[in-house]
Amino acid sequence: MAELKGYKGKIRDLLISNKIDVGNLVKITSELTYSGILMPRYESGDESHIVLKLKSGYNIGIEFEKIEKIEKIGEGQSSVESSQTIEKDEKLPKILLLSTGGTIASKVDYRTGAVTPALSATELYEAVPEIAKIANVDAEVLFSEYSENLQPEHWLEIAKKVDSVADSEYTGIIIAHGTDTMHYSSAFLSFALSGFKKPIVLVGSQRSSDRPSSDAALNLIAATKFLTRCSAKGVFIVMHHDESDNAIACHLGTRVRKNHTSKRSAFETIGSPPAYIIFENEIIDNSYKNKKEFSKEYNPRINLDTKVALVKYHPGFDPEIIESLIKLEYRAIIFEGTGLGHVGKTMYESIRKAKENGIFLGMTSQCIDGRVSMTVYESGRDLLDIGIVPLETMIPEVALVKAMWVLGNSDSDHEIKKMMLEDCASEFFTE
Amino acid sequence: MAELKGYKGKIRDLLISNKIDVGNLVKITSELTYSGILMPRYESGDESHIVLKLKSGYNIGIEFEKIEKIEKIGEGQSSVESSQTIEKDEKLPKILLLSTGGTIASKVDYRTGAVTPALSATELYEAVPEIAKIANVDAEVLFSEYSENLQPEHWLEIAKKVDSVADSEYTGIIIAHGTDTMHYSSAFLSFALSGFKKPIVLVGSQRSSDRPSSDAALNLIAATKFLTRCSAKGVFIVMHHDESDNAIACHLGTRVRKNHTSKRSAFETIGSPPAYIIFENEIIDNSYKNKKEFSKEYNPRINLDTKVALVKYHPGFDPEIIESLIKLEYRAIIFEGTGLGHVGKTMYESIRKAKENGIFLGMTSQCIDGRVSMTVYESGRDLLDIGIVPLETMIPEVALVKAMWVLGNSDSDHEIKKMMLEDCASEFFTE
Repeated sequence: MAELKGYKGKIRDLLISNKIDVGNLVKITSELTYSGILMPRYESGDESHIVLKLKSGYNIGIEFEKIEKIEKIGEGQSSVESSQTIEKDEKLPKILLLSTGGTIASKVDYRTGAVTPALSATELYEAVPEIAKIANVDAEVLFSEYSENLQPEHWLEIAKKVDSVADSEYTGIIIAHGTDTMHYSSAFLSFALSGFKKPIVLVGSQRSSDRPSSDAALNLIAATKFLTRCSAKGVFIVMHHDESDNAIACHLGTRVRKNHTSKRSAFETIGSPPAYIIFENEIIDNSYKNKKEFSKEYNPRINLDTKVALVKYHPGFDPEIIESLIKLEYRAIIFEGTGLGHVGKTMYESIRKAKENGIFLGMTSQCIDGRVSMTVYESGRDLLDIGIVPLETMIPEVALVKAMWVLGNSDSDHEIKKMMLEDCASEFFTE
Repeated sequence: MAELKGYKGKIRDLLISNKIDVGNLVKITSELTYSGILMPRYESGDESHIVLKLKSGYNIGIEFEKIEKIEKIGEGQSSVESSQTIEKDEKLPKILLLSTGGTIASKVDYRTGAVTPALSATELYEAVPEIAKIANVDAEVLFSEYSENLQPEHWLEIAKKVDSVADSEYTGIIIAHGTDTMHYSSAFLSFALSGFKKPIVLVGSQRSSDRPSSDAALNLIAATKFLTRCSAKGVFIVMHHDESDNAIACHLGTRVRKNHTSKRSAFETIGSPPAYIIFENEIIDNSYKNKKEFSKEYNPRINLDTKVALVKYHPGFDPEIIESLIKLEYRAIIFEGTGLGHVGKTMYESIRKAKENGIFLGMTSQCIDGRVSMTVYESGRDLLDIGIVPLETMIPEVALVKAMWVLGNSDSDHEIKKMMLEDCASEFFTE
C-alpha cells in the first residue's frame, strides 16, 4: 500500500482498510454510484477527494465526506489493457492526431505521481475511447514539450507536417498542444497554411488527467466531432466554453487569446462569440466572418523571421529600450500602445530613429479588445506622421506572429506593409 | 453660416435654411422634444446626426431622418454665460476637483472644431452644473495633458497635491484624468497614499463632450455622488459600467484595467465585480475585500524609481533583450509569463544572469485574469529555483507600478521582496 500516491489522512486510511491501491478498479457509492480506476493525487492536491477515472475517460473527484461505500471490483490493469485493442470501423471518417505535448498529452507516472508531457499520441487516443466511435484516428507524436518551450522552429515543423497531408484522405487534423502558447501556434498555422482545405484544430486541456474535472477528454471528443460533422476549413482552437461540460468553444485561430491562468474556459475569442459552439449533438455556427476563407486558394508559405519585438508602452517606459532593439538589428516592432494606439511623446525620438533604420512599426492596443484609431487624438496623428502603421483590430500577439511570418516571406518594405494590412486569415475583426 | 463646423449635406442645408449656427440654442422635435446648444461635429463624424448639448450638460445625437421640426430659440451665448454664476450652497459637502487633462477635460474650439485637453477645472465644473447641487467644488488645474503623455513624475506631483489636503475639510478628491493610463496612475496613488482617510476618485471619459453619448458628465456626477454619499476610503476609478447610462462602476485603483479601446465601459475590475456600482439614487457595495484598507494608518510614501521593465514572454523571445536590460542597469523586471507564470527554457540563462546582477524578478501572467502558480509544472519550479518571485493575482501593469514604488522606497533586496508580496492596497485579489 506504499503506492497510494498523494492520498493522506482519513482517505488513505479508508483505502488501506479496503485494500485498494492506485490503478485498481473501484466502485464508490456516494450521492451517485461511480465505477472507475483509482487515480493518484498530487502531493499538493486537496485532501478531501478521491479521484476516479471513469470508463468515458473523464476524471471525477468524489468528496470523502459523502462516500457511503467503497469497494475494489478489479485489479484495473486488465481494463487499461483492453482499451489498447480498439477496433477500427473503416466506414468512419479518418483524422490525423498530432501530439506536441502539453497537459493534454501528460501522463501520470503511477509510481512517482509526477506529470510529464510524455503520453504518446496513440495512448492519448486510447485514453479517450469515445473518439473511436466517431472517427478512425492515425496518431503521431511530433514533440513532447510543454508549450512554453515551443519556439517558432516548432511552428515550422508542425506546419510542414500538416502541409504534407494537404492532399490526403484525412477529414481533418487535431493537434494536441499545451495551452500556454496555443494561440501563438494557431496564429502562425493560420497564416502559413492560409486556404488549407481541411479543418485544423488545436486542442489542449487546462487540468491534467489525474485531476477531478480534467477537460482533456471532453475537448478531444468535441474536436473530433467538429472535424467530422462540420464543413469548416482553417485553423481553430477547441477548448471549454464555460464552466459546464455541455458547451465546448471553437475559436478562430487568429482571434483567440488565453485570458485566464487556470479556468477550463480560459480561451476567449476577442470581440465576438466563438466561431462555433460544440454541444453533445449540435454545432452552433457563428463563423460568418470566416466563411470567405473557405474559398481561398491554398497557398502555403511556411517561413518566418523572429526579429520582431513586442513592446508594451507604459508611463516611465525608457526609450533606450527602443535604441537597444535598433542595435540588435530588429526588423519590426509591434507596439502595444495605450487606448486607441498611443505612446508618450518621450518615445517619439527613438521611434523616429527606428523608422530611419528601416524597422517596420505596427500599432496595436494593450486594451486587447477594440480597434486602434490613430486619427482621433494628436498623439495618434503624430505617430502616423512618424510612420507607425495602425493594425486595426489585430490582437497584439497575433500581430507579433504575423509580422514574423510576413518578414519571413518578404524583404520589401512596401510589400511588408501591404501584407500586414491585408486580411490573410480572418485576423481582422469586422463588426 | 461658415461656422457650421462638421455639418455636411442635408443637415447643413436644414440648419442654413433655419438660420441656425453652432452655439445657438435650438429646439428639435423628433421622437421626443429636445432643447439645447447646437454642438460642432468633427470632420470625420457621421453625417446623419445633429448634436445638442442639453441643459444637463449631457450631449445627445438626434438622427436627421427622425427630425420633424427644428427651430432656433436663442443665440445661446447668454445660456453659456449664465452657467458661470453657479451659487454655492455652504451646507453641501466640499470636494476638491483636480484636472490633469484628457478627454474629460477637453474643450471643443467652436471655430476650429478641434478638441484639446485645455478645459480649466472650473470650466469642467461649470459644464456639469448638476454637481453644484451635490457638493461645493473647489477646482484646480494640475496639468493639461492627454494621459499617454503623463509620466511617473506626474504621478508624484498628483500624489503630493493630494497628500497636502489630507487633513483638509474636503470630503473627497476627484481627479479628472485621461483614460489611456488612468489605471497606472490609480495604482501609483493607491500605493503612495496607502491608508488615505478620504476617497480619491479618478474620472475620465471615453468620448469627448462634442460627441453624442459623451460619458463625461455622467461619470463626473456619479463620482461626486460617490464621494459625498459613500463611506469608502482609498483610490478608485469611476467610469461607465455598461452601455447604458444607468450604472456607473467604481473600481478599486489596483484591480482595474482598460480592456477596450473605445467603449464607454472600457474599464473592468479583474477577477471580480467592481467595488461599487453607482446608480441614480443608490450605491451598491461589493467592496468586501477593500474594507480592511479602511482601518490602515495613513502612511504616505511618495517615491519611485522607474528602472523597472515589463517583459512579455512569447515564443521566439530573444534573451538578448534581457541582457540589454542588465546593461541598462535595470533594478527590476516584471515578467508577463504565459499561463500559470512560465517562460521558455531558452530564457533561463539570461534570467539567471539578471538574478546574479541583483535584479528583482517578479512573475505575473499575460492571461491577466487568474493567479500565477509556479509549483504545478516543471517550468514554474525551474523559475522558482532561479529566484523569480510569483506575484500571485497581481495585474501585470499594477505589478510594474508597484515595483517602481517599492524600489523608490527601499534598497534592501529582502525588503523589496517582502513589500512586493505584502498586500499594500488591495492589489491581490482573494476569492
